[in-house]
Amino acid sequence: MPYDLVIKNGLVINSDSECYADVAIDGAVIRAIGQGLRGKEEVDAQGCYVIPGGIDPHVHLQLPLGDQISADSFADGTIAAACGGTTTVIDFATPQPEESMVAALAARRAEADGRVAIDYGLHMTIPTWHGADRARLTEIPAVLAAGCATFKLYQAYAGYMLDDEALFRALQAVGAAGGRAVLHSETGPLLEMLRTAALAQGCTSAVWHERTRPTALEASAIQRATVLAHLARCPLFVFHIGCADGVAALTAARQRGLDVLGESCPHYLFFTDEEHLDSPAGHLYICAPPLRSAADQAAIWQALANDQLQVVSTDHCPWTPAQKTQPDFTRVPGGIPGIEARLALIHHGGVVQGRLSRQRWVQLCATNAARWMGLANKGVLAPGYQADVVIFDPQQEHVVSLSSLHEKSGWSPYAGMAMQGWPRTIFLGGKAIVVDGAYVGSPGDGRFVARHV
Amino acid sequence: MPYDLVIKNGLVINSDSECYADVAIDGAVIRAIGQGLRGKEEVDAQGCYVIPGGIDPHVHLQLPLGDQISADSFADGTIAAACGGTTTVIDFATPQPEESMVAALAARRAEADGRVAIDYGLHMTIPTWHGADRARLTEIPAVLAAGCATFKLYQAYAGYMLDDEALFRALQAVGAAGGRAVLHSETGPLLEMLRTAALAQGCTSAVWHERTRPTALEASAIQRATVLAHLARCPLFVFHIGCADGVAALTAARQRGLDVLGESCPHYLFFTDEEHLDSPAGHLYICAPPLRSAADQAAIWQALANDQLQVVSTDHCPWTPAQKTQPDFTRVPGGIPGIEARLALIHHGGVVQGRLSRQRWVQLCATNAARWMGLANKGVLAPGYQADVVIFDPQQEHVVSLSSLHEKSGWSPYAGMAMQGWPRTIFLGGKAIVVDGAYVGSPGDGRFVARHV
Amino acid sequence: MPYDLVIKNGLVINSDSECYADVAIDGAVIRAIGQGLRGKEEVDAQGCYVIPGGIDPHVHLQLPLGDQISADSFADGTIAAACGGTTTVIDFATPQPEESMVAALAARRAEADGRVAIDYGLHMTIPTWHGADRARLTEIPAVLAAGCATFKLYQAYAGYMLDDEALFRALQAVGAAGGRAVLHSETGPLLEMLRTAALAQGCTSAVWHERTRPTALEASAIQRATVLAHLARCPLFVFHIGCADGVAALTAARQRGLDVLGESCPHYLFFTDEEHLDSPAGHLYICAPPLRSAADQAAIWQALANDQLQVVSTDHCPWTPAQKTQPDFTRVPGGIPGIEARLALIHHGGVVQGRLSRQRWVQLCATNAARWMGLANKGVLAPGYQADVVIFDPQQEHVVSLSSLHEKSGWSPYAGMAMQGWPRTIFLGGKAIVVDGAYVGSPGDGRFVARHV
Amino acid sequence: MPYDLVIKNGLVINSDSECYADVAIDGAVIRAIGQGLRGKEEVDAQGCYVIPGGIDPHVHLQLPLGDQISADSFADGTIAAACGGTTTVIDFATPQPEESMVAALAARRAEADGRVAIDYGLHMTIPTWHGADRARLTEIPAVLAAGCATFKLYQAYAGYMLDDEALFRALQAVGAAGGRAVLHSETGPLLEMLRTAALAQGCTSAVWHERTRPTALEASAIQRATVLAHLARCPLFVFHIGCADGVAALTAARQRGLDVLGESCPHYLFFTDEEHLDSPAGHLYICAPPLRSAADQAAIWQALANDQLQVVSTDHCPWTPAQKTQPDFTRVPGGIPGIEARLALIHHGGVVQGRLSRQRWVQLCATNAARWMGLANKGVLAPGYQADVVIFDPQQEHVVSLSSLHEKSGWSPYAGMAMQGWPRTIFLGGKAIVVDGAYVGSPGDGRFVARHV
Repeated sequence: MPYDLVIKNGLVINSDSECYADVAIDGAVIRAIGQGLRGKEEVDAQGCYVIPGGIDPHVHLQLPLGDQISADSFADGTIAAACGGTTTVIDFATPQPEESMVAALAARRAEADGRVAIDYGLHMTIPTWHGADRARLTEIPAVLAAGCATFKLYQAYAGYMLDDEALFRALQAVGAAGGRAVLHSETGPLLEMLRTAALAQGCTSAVWHERTRPTALEASAIQRATVLAHLARCPLFVFHIGCADGVAALTAARQRGLDVLGESCPHYLFFTDEEHLDSPAGHLYICAPPLRSAADQAAIWQALANDQLQVVSTDHCPWTPAQKTQPDFTRVPGGIPGIEARLALIHHGGVVQGRLSRQRWVQLCATNAARWMGLANKGVLAPGYQADVVIFDPQQEHVVSLSSLHEKSGWSPYAGMAMQGWPRTIFLGGKAIVVDGAYVGSPGDGRFVARHV
Repeated sequence: MPYDLVIKNGLVINSDSECYADVAIDGAVIRAIGQGLRGKEEVDAQGCYVIPGGIDPHVHLQLPLGDQISADSFADGTIAAACGGTTTVIDFATPQPEESMVAALAARRAEADGRVAIDYGLHMTIPTWHGADRARLTEIPAVLAAGCATFKLYQAYAGYMLDDEALFRALQAVGAAGGRAVLHSETGPLLEMLRTAALAQGCTSAVWHERTRPTALEASAIQRATVLAHLARCPLFVFHIGCADGVAALTAARQRGLDVLGESCPHYLFFTDEEHLDSPAGHLYICAPPLRSAADQAAIWQALANDQLQVVSTDHCPWTPAQKTQPDFTRVPGGIPGIEARLALIHHGGVVQGRLSRQRWVQLCATNAARWMGLANKGVLAPGYQADVVIFDPQQEHVVSLSSLHEKSGWSPYAGMAMQGWPRTIFLGGKAIVVDGAYVGSPGDGRFVARHV
Repeated sequence: MPYDLVIKNGLVINSDSECYADVAIDGAVIRAIGQGLRGKEEVDAQGCYVIPGGIDPHVHLQLPLGDQISADSFADGTIAAACGGTTTVIDFATPQPEESMVAALAARRAEADGRVAIDYGLHMTIPTWHGADRARLTEIPAVLAAGCATFKLYQAYAGYMLDDEALFRALQAVGAAGGRAVLHSETGPLLEMLRTAALAQGCTSAVWHERTRPTALEASAIQRATVLAHLARCPLFVFHIGCADGVAALTAARQRGLDVLGESCPHYLFFTDEEHLDSPAGHLYICAPPLRSAADQAAIWQALANDQLQVVSTDHCPWTPAQKTQPDFTRVPGGIPGIEARLALIHHGGVVQGRLSRQRWVQLCATNAARWMGLANKGVLAPGYQADVVIFDPQQEHVVSLSSLHEKSGWSPYAGMAMQGWPRTIFLGGKAIVVDGAYVGSPGDGRFVARHV
Repeated sequence: MPYDLVIKNGLVINSDSECYADVAIDGAVIRAIGQGLRGKEEVDAQGCYVIPGGIDPHVHLQLPLGDQISADSFADGTIAAACGGTTTVIDFATPQPEESMVAALAARRAEADGRVAIDYGLHMTIPTWHGADRARLTEIPAVLAAGCATFKLYQAYAGYMLDDEALFRALQAVGAAGGRAVLHSETGPLLEMLRTAALAQGCTSAVWHERTRPTALEASAIQRATVLAHLARCPLFVFHIGCADGVAALTAARQRGLDVLGESCPHYLFFTDEEHLDSPAGHLYICAPPLRSAADQAAIWQALANDQLQVVSTDHCPWTPAQKTQPDFTRVPGGIPGIEARLALIHHGGVVQGRLSRQRWVQLCATNAARWMGLANKGVLAPGYQADVVIFDPQQEHVVSLSSLHEKSGWSPYAGMAMQGWPRTIFLGGKAIVVDGAYVGSPGDGRFVARHV
């Protein structure tokens, strides 16, 4: 009895195995990985990699910031992700000062449900006003029950920043409820002072964005957060580490036995402060933590290879060039787009250029995020797992361009970059949403995914 | 068209996934992992784990030492391994002074072929006499071509020890040929001096075995070897690390980007020098490197959990109590048996006692060894991989006893130990060799496995 | 022409030399160190060490705390110090919320001037209310001009604690003015939470004082402070380090090239939490940071020997047993007396017991504090330096007792301790204030010492 | 009663004090440091520093190498040292294969006694042939009794290199006898291999001298030696550390509590491999360990400032340009001259350029070497110490030139270097040997100094 769908003849790559095999799917679920499987529908993947759908655990779609909103809506951004081989993203729900977390979750879901091209989850932000209010934290089990297992904490940014006390309290509450904290780790109050001081001295150009965020302050924040997380018995995941000092702080904590993981992002792997921030277009490259030196970049590649870092996300945060053009670096909305090219970028810079094995590539782009973000039936090609599958053509020569990208911010730092390898066909829950590079899906193909860590 | 054999209804565990699925086998090869698969023969694994056959990359069967030979022949030892769920071992070929490595490989294969119950590979030892002879090292490509991809180097033991120069030359030769070095890392010359000094002072009891092998000398040897391996561009694998200092030395090297891995063994995880070496039966527990402190033991468990160490082997080296009863600790042949209980020990101490996940258990006992020892189609349950499969009953209460073990050394440090979980049925290349705990195989079921790293 | 006074025939010990020589004094100043010098008055020091007067850069005399005041007045405490061989102490001036620092300095001087038996300096505390008020910090140059070159900052304690922002601002202001920060480094907000949580669980005994102040939080605070001090370009001196983790954090900063030093105190060197806090008299031993483990104690001795720590102060803070007897550990005023026995304790535990050289003892107890606290003409026996001199009898067997001590808190942790070596005769600015162990001075012998770092 | 000689009005600088004072000398010994002292002879030092005579614990005068001999005889070299403000050097005695150490000491003394311009001591080399012969080591106590307390061990160089076993045995013997080991620490056997390989590939230029001596091999040798020294209970002093990796290895050992110190040399502080080895005159700059990178150089300066390194010696080893001009880098005799300018170089690069305090300069150039090399009455200006005194004019503008130098190798890397500060007048044991920059001494002013550590 044939399966509904069989992807045939590809090299099936999981994080710890590779085999020439077929992937058989019934409905939304993988039923078998095997040789000689037959389907009512069959798709040939000869010469291609067949890998789990990419998981990007850190994106910001239609992000409101003051009276602006980031360029990619849930619809646009998830189409772009889909076309790049990502079938699940995790975005954020952020309660307003008077809003409950559960309500914020519902409100954010209302923005996304029915519009998303791929599956999505939400991290629940615990902003300053909630972190300062012990009563608010009692809501955390309800948030977990609603499928949001990870809680975004900030050590920086007015409105979001948690001081040590609030951070510890939030970590305790998240840990006790069985969640995991995800962390923006910089020493916020100091950064504000350094920024103010720089402006006062007339230092307004983009490179000052990095100079006012020294790596020692990033590492110190990570060090402190890991100590607090350990005392609070809360698993931790540190976002967007882009410097060697940060990796060292994370590694030291891991070797003391803490349950703490770290991610980096493509922009730290392809750009540097010297070359990109310190340039006329530097404002476009402003993100936080900032781009760092070439030596840091090499350290991050190595940390991804030797498991000092575990995940590559995009921190996709798309603003238009107009939005990013501001009188001084402190007014530039932070963030760099990149949701679409992630799989191909890491394939090209990692696998093709010899820094990562294919299996490590899959692990960094899908498997590890699934494991630690609580996506229980994703990130692996195996029976019973959701049929999120990417047919990736490792030979395809692809030049990124604004016209080919589905992102909507009107610029991309990767535009013009030639790479070897690009996703060809993508299945979400067994349904083809991208075929031969063309998006063929419909709004609402994706669903909210409840996560439990 | 049904498959030859289907193992049904178990929890299939790979190092990065778990799924309730069936494993379909045609001949010696896994054809599919799927749900609802049908076979000409079907074996029910309900309630059990279905995992890749264990791989033990470090055993010493019928090891000649002076005029003695270790207790387990290739036949006996591999039956014991099989009954414990190990379907592949890697033993050693060691050339005599005038013998070529290729000849030694052939000779060792002649001892094993046709007698082994499971698959086996061989590390090629490069002893002192070969290491000192540059011409000998030109043979290495031929050894690799003969299927032996890993080369055992020693920094200790008369007859085997390579000084820095020979070690570096051997590492260069192995690295250039595309092999990997596996290493016994202790500062041999110093140990000999400390042993002699201890004896001269009348210190003969077993505990002096540890006191004359300080951890600093083990760590220093590892540190030195990693520096040499890096300069020589040779991948490295450090055997039997049992102390925190050793882990630290290895970790420091890994963070500098070296391709170096490490293993530990069950005896370091269950016994200590204070309790076991420093006892009337201490001579039985003599092995090298020696048992260490309880603090070291905790460090090793943690290192296995957080990937500072990557593999658990047994270093199975069985001597009878009579052989191990000697006038002083320096004359006791080193080694502890354990080939049979490894999977169950790590399951019990690791998974049941909450130190390791099930997937990490599989990774430590099978997947990682396959990857780094060049067993390309082993260590994973996936189509195209060899059908080495263990049905492991996690609920079975098992008390290790001399009568139930198949090992032949007449004692076991694990005798009397109660554990939860034991292998039930084992397949080697699709053939059942253990059924419901009973060995049903035949001599020569196993074959020599050519390995390429 | 004879000198006014010559101390003859002793072993003159400086931090980097020892010689049998005479010390010649004219008025308040050392005029010569030489052999065969003659004086109008001559004091024989045969068989004794002649060393610089002890400098204790961290004491709390007549310290107000709520409606209480610590047991030793400036008069009593400085007599006790004098009798123990300390000729200079540094206490604290702490402004009230509405008080200027300069006024606080004057007020504190008014309490001490004319009453002190030995010289004294004052650190200026920058409490929370001043740290939060940028305008207040503009007063710092005036404080320096008034002779107070060191500024006490706290990372803990309500009313004193500076958050990162205030700490950085204070460090910048102190550094820019040419001062040095002295620091109480613990992660205050967390400690408060842990204390509250312990009390809520009925944990009231003294040992919980340590259990709610984990060493990781002390080390993390030190790490953070050193990063901020480096960015703020402010020299730093970390008070009362009593744990290995703290030493490690300090050492890491020093190796990055930061100008940061650290001190420990006798109570960390002689008592432990296990033995002394966890006892019926545990409340007496409450101080902050708390007593630590025996392993930490050994680490501190070693850090003093190998220059990872540079100074031994007492943090003398005397409360009566009645004051320290409280319903729970959080209400016990923190602090341990010890101003009198410091020189002898470090001589006995350090020099006699073989952990420190005599020269290092002098360096830890006098020379280094002089150097880094800005006591330009103290801490050394050399011409032009102030004639603060201790004749120390290294052979005297001395048992500390409440009756022999001049401290007034009614208890001493050192009571009953037998030690070898005790000060015999003490000169302050050339005037004998202790003769053969008996105090012979007058109120106001000591003066306020302006310091410049 | 006036002293024989008084040096008046200078700033007397010891390692832990500074004072404007006079230095009074009777015969060869300092009698007093004081103000207003009167002498039969008085020398004015107004405006100058008065410091202890420099101690250079690592020089090679009239060093035989094959059929050559280094350019400076004992007479010439010690005159040069004297003119630079160094009043004590430590050279080496090296036994021939069949020669006893005591005989070698006598023979070497016979070359120097009566000819040296300043005091000198000798390290006793334990070459390969002696290290391999256990009986030879029994001679060590006799060598100590003859005034030679330090033993030079090599981990590199054919003829000198000690393998682990010999090194450990020598360390044990030296430690047991109460001596200190001084160490050339590089991984010799590997260096030989790398050099041979480089030559085989036609790499003959001087820069290959550094490329075949990677810092990792230097650090690894130091790490190993400290472990062995700790086990052997032997104090250690590591010569000529010029790279950050080496400093890190030394520091790690010191923090574990080992009695181990380290020195660097001026050439590591002023030259780099990039600029000086990799140049047409690169062969002149060949020394071992080699010049390193600018980053290493900065690390060494910092290590000298923060006490990670303790001594600056010269490793003066003068060869003529003709001797250093060879067909390939392996044939160039290693060594750089510098015995004369050391004090001024460290004053200029350290004190004038703000890296070191004056007191630290004195400590690095005199006091520490005296302490750890067993020169009990040297290195300090205090009564009873030998009257080795330098009047150093910190304002003198001095340009080093071949014509002004007293060294005889015909070149100097420092020629042409302008510096601020130069020695003016030098006393050895109370006798003026340099006056206003002119050498006025006689052969045999200096004597052999027996040392005890």
